Amino acid sequence: MKASSLNARDLLIVTGRYSVDIAPGRVPLSDGAGVVEAVGDGVSRFRVGDRVVGTFHPAWLYGPFPEWGRLRGTHRDGWLTEYLALDEQSLVAVPDQLSFEEAATLPCAALTAWSAVSGVGPGDALLVQGSGGVSVFALQFARLAGARVLATTSSGAKARRLGALGASDVVDYTSTPEWGTRVRELTGGGADRVVEIGGAGTLSQSIDAVAHGGQIALVGNLAAGGGMDVTRFFRRAATLRSISVGSRSDFERMNKAIDRHRLRPAIDRVFPFDQAPEAFAHFEKGPRFGKVVITH
Amino acid sequence: MKASSLNARDLLIVTGRYSVDIAPGRVPLSDGAGVVEAVGDGVSRFRVGDRVVGTFHPAWLYGPFPEWGRLRGTHRDGWLTEYLALDEQSLVAVPDQLSFEEAATLPCAALTAWSAVSGVGPGDALLVQGSGGVSVFALQFARLAGARVLATTSSGAKARRLGALGASDVVDYTSTPEWGTRVRELTGGGADRVVEIGGAGTLSQSIDAVAHGGQIALVGNLAAGGGMDVTRFFRRAATLRSISVGSRSDFERMNKAIDRHRLRPAIDRVFPFDQAPEAFAHFEKGPRFGKVVITH
Amino acid sequence: MKASSLNARDLLIVTGRYSVDIAPGRVPLSDGAGVVEAVGDGVSRFRVGDRVVGTFHPAWLYGPFPEWGRLRGTHRDGWLTEYLALDEQSLVAVPDQLSFEEAATLPCAALTAWSAVSGVGPGDALLVQGSGGVSVFALQFARLAGARVLATTSSGAKARRLGALGASDVVDYTSTPEWGTRVRELTGGGADRVVEIGGAGTLSQSIDAVAHGGQIALVGNLAAGGGMDVTRFFRRAATLRSISVGSRSDFERMNKAIDRHRLRPAIDRVFPFDQAPEAFAHFEKGPRFGKVVITH
Amino acid sequence: MKASSLNARDLLIVTGRYSVDIAPGRVPLSDGAGVVEAVGDGVSRFRVGDRVVGTFHPAWLYGPFPEWGRLRGTHRDGWLTEYLALDEQSLVAVPDQLSFEEAATLPCAALTAWSAVSGVGPGDALLVQGSGGVSVFALQFARLAGARVLATTSSGAKARRLGALGASDVVDYTSTPEWGTRVRELTGGGADRVVEIGGAGTLSQSIDAVAHGGQIALVGNLAAGGGMDVTRFFRRAATLRSISVGSRSDFERMNKAIDRHRLRPAIDRVFPFDQAPEAFAHFEKGPRFGKVVITH
Repeated sequence: MKASSLNARDLLIVTGRYSVDIAPGRVPLSDGAGVVEAVGDGVSRFRVGDRVVGTFHPAWLYGPFPEWGRLRGTHRDGWLTEYLALDEQSLVAVPDQLSFEEAATLPCAALTAWSAVSGVGPGDALLVQGSGGVSVFALQFARLAGARVLATTSSGAKARRLGALGASDVVDYTSTPEWGTRVRELTGGGADRVVEIGGAGTLSQSIDAVAHGGQIALVGNLAAGGGMDVTRFFRRAATLRSISVGSRSDFERMNKAIDRHRLRPAIDRVFPFDQAPEAFAHFEKGPRFGKVVITH
Repeated sequence: MKASSLNARDLLIVTGRYSVDIAPGRVPLSDGAGVVEAVGDGVSRFRVGDRVVGTFHPAWLYGPFPEWGRLRGTHRDGWLTEYLALDEQSLVAVPDQLSFEEAATLPCAALTAWSAVSGVGPGDALLVQGSGGVSVFALQFARLAGARVLATTSSGAKARRLGALGASDVVDYTSTPEWGTRVRELTGGGADRVVEIGGAGTLSQSIDAVAHGGQIALVGNLAAGGGMDVTRFFRRAATLRSISVGSRSDFERMNKAIDRHRLRPAIDRVFPFDQAPEAFAHFEKGPRFGKVVITH
Repeated sequence: MKASSLNARDLLIVTGRYSVDIAPGRVPLSDGAGVVEAVGDGVSRFRVGDRVVGTFHPAWLYGPFPEWGRLRGTHRDGWLTEYLALDEQSLVAVPDQLSFEEAATLPCAALTAWSAVSGVGPGDALLVQGSGGVSVFALQFARLAGARVLATTSSGAKARRLGALGASDVVDYTSTPEWGTRVRELTGGGADRVVEIGGAGTLSQSIDAVAHGGQIALVGNLAAGGGMDVTRFFRRAATLRSISVGSRSDFERMNKAIDRHRLRPAIDRVFPFDQAPEAFAHFEKGPRFGKVVITH
Repeated sequence: MKASSLNARDLLIVTGRYSVDIAPGRVPLSDGAGVVEAVGDGVSRFRVGDRVVGTFHPAWLYGPFPEWGRLRGTHRDGWLTEYLALDEQSLVAVPDQLSFEEAATLPCAALTAWSAVSGVGPGDALLVQGSGGVSVFALQFARLAGARVLATTSSGAKARRLGALGASDVVDYTSTPEWGTRVRELTGGGADRVVEIGGAGTLSQSIDAVAHGGQIALVGNLAAGGGMDVTRFFRRAATLRSISVGSRSDFERMNKAIDRHRLRPAIDRVFPFDQAPEAFAHFEKGPRFGKVVITH
């Protein structure tokens, strides 16, 4: 193992707030990258010395989402460790131009963003919320695909960084609590796609923000939980699509695009292995811009 | 006008329960068929004597859903009348083999079902709820497309009729209130598509019924209103898609399929024009199987 | 090995007319089914006793077509043998209701037909040529998907069998050499999809037969070779799509549909293992209807 | 009429080489833009003073390609005139930031390129041939969509302009007659999409250039005519798709993207109305980069 990265899910797990019971002593983190040290009989996809990164769903190779399987960090030990025995089917090659730290950001956050953005193109407008890992990747992928991207944030410094990555408009959600309506005005009718990361009350604003006939891509664990007003949703003629990260096939396609465009993941901060607790504390407290990474 | 048909929306309108204020004296009904009696200057799509049926969205000709426009029965006078002046763009030709009564069932119910079923094919399983107009059309279209269809109902007589139209399994929702779980068992993992008509509590069962990665097509006005548990929905990795009837282009494609397959709409009962109140009373009281039609 | 089946490609190979040089003594046949007798270390997809069928492209698991790999019967020994050591990734499970003889028909012919028919639905018209393995499967799959199917043939007996499988119209290509024009008349403008199997002169007729904006699915090795008149093709506004069988993922989806619909492959004749030469002679001489199979 | 533009088709028409007989005295040019001077009864899409541009297929509003209708410049008088009476259905609004000269380039060349490029995204590689109107638009649209674009040309000056518009690689087809093979090398396996404009011998090179499983978008009238080697095409596992410009619905979507990205058409040279013959002479002789326009 050379590097791993944190997701919102990991924070819930280590703080005992996750929806599934976790065995005591479970090693955390679903995302990581490293070098192949040894291979077993019959291994054909990789050789000793290859740079590899894990998949979030170890058994979802291609096609539509099958079911929730046995994931690392919850059902199996995760990547915050020195060595791990992995099925070759649950790994993909690290794109050449990426460091291990950058590669470790891909399995959950980047692939989730890639899936959430899929189908968006020139002429479309997309909204991202804040500047966490998924949101920043979604901004980057949507820009690659020629879409206009709007973002919400709470600070001028982050707004400038979002603008530098190509956001055409950044709405301050503290000064503009009705940011959904604001996005609808800015886009002349609403965003064709909203990447909904599931904070408290965001879904209600997303319904305001989305264009008639548009799509809300629903990402991750709604820590805030709660319901959705179905009648308001229906009146927007919208679609709500759950994003369950993606298959290994999707991962490979994403890496091809990352490689071709020399896309660099936004890393908020890198912590050494023995400061993993500090990494979690920083992840919880924020503010963040992009991914929090641990180097091993 | 030769015939018109009733939808759930019309019942809400005439009983004052609709979500939008309706002008007093508004003529009801969004769906109807008739014969062209006269044409204005510059009309090129139809000639006197042509058999025509109206579109639900008069201004949505093609492409993605634009916005809610001025609909008949709410914003404009509807089809429960003898003559109507209509824009030629808001009409399509009646398929040859259909009567006016059959054609009058198409604009809202059939096109909604067509849109809800789109993309389903051989190897897929689809669930319909009950035996109202949309559900029976959805059953018929899904069978044309080679899908397995399951249905819910509350009576043995209806179950037999659903079976005769090609339903492989019919679940009694009164004796099996947890019909979502039952559908998941019958299909070995859930239905790939659920046509959700929005009764009280049905959406919660639909989330149980839908397969991982499957889609719930959300139809019509949720009279029952209420919320959706987003966390449960996300865990099913499902998509919720609002169905706003469809465009005129969709209508024409549907008619081509109706024509080629000699599909006959299921008509529950036909009332004469002067018994329109009885038609509404029958629509409200039930039981029904298919569409309630008024002949003019 | 329990059963294998013949394709046009195999006849070219054993008679020395194939486009690629074949090593002397190469065991023929790309398609076959059998039972797992033993498994190596690390095998997880199958167990001893499982009924399996091979994939035509051993290394194409999912996604778009990669490139022509090392195929059985040409670059590696094929299925006309008693035992074969196979990579578990190059096998799929046999659908329960199929015999080994039926399963052996699937890898090339059925999957080619499945790929050629993909996207066809109710309201579409499809044309198949003759009654070889691919054509009969294409007829069956298109009927499952609700399409109207037209076919060409040269005998009344075959025409009756094609009709029994659901063909709406059968055109005799000996008495109607301009069968392309005839298909265009019968369909009122042309077939939306033509499955072109590549006999002498068929492509020219297919361009006549296809609807404006329609698609010609190009199957297999054009023994007759030759060119295509690009100007005539362009004037039909058509698409010509090469069908390279399909991926293992496609195979699994096809099997799901075969299973759900209890579809039975059309087998022309079964030969015992020691009459393989007679099987090839029969395949060459015809007439045939469906697949020629060898039982082991 | 304020401006019109030339296409290869127009040159064939005025020089008597077009495949369809043209009535004597027919006014040429299919593409033009102008201002609405007067409207008839029942016109609702436009008002006096609106800036409008014509559609190439006056009757193809949406959906799949219907058939070749009555086009301007061949079956009806074209745009090289002062006034024209047009059906409001055959016009779309000019994007605000475009001049009339720029708008006049859109109907055939830009929409053909838009259709030829559709579906291409980040991670894909696309090849354009030369620097005529369609090729330059295809380069621009593919760049908007995040694709890598390669181009062929015959001069260093054009190569620099193609590079300035975003081409990653430009191959000189005079010094590299086997440019198809060169493109395959540069892309590590071939271009995912080739926009084939149909010069003499180009299709054969395009088959070399296209990736396994890739698509050749076939544009316009093959002046050079000729055949295609179907066996070589099949071995590339490619698709050949005829591009018949596009529907009005496609035009509107394209304009939305042009508007959002402030895309400016590449204009080679503008001639005044009374130098129309010189415009045709320049169009024929070349060299050109982008569109040749006539201002009225």
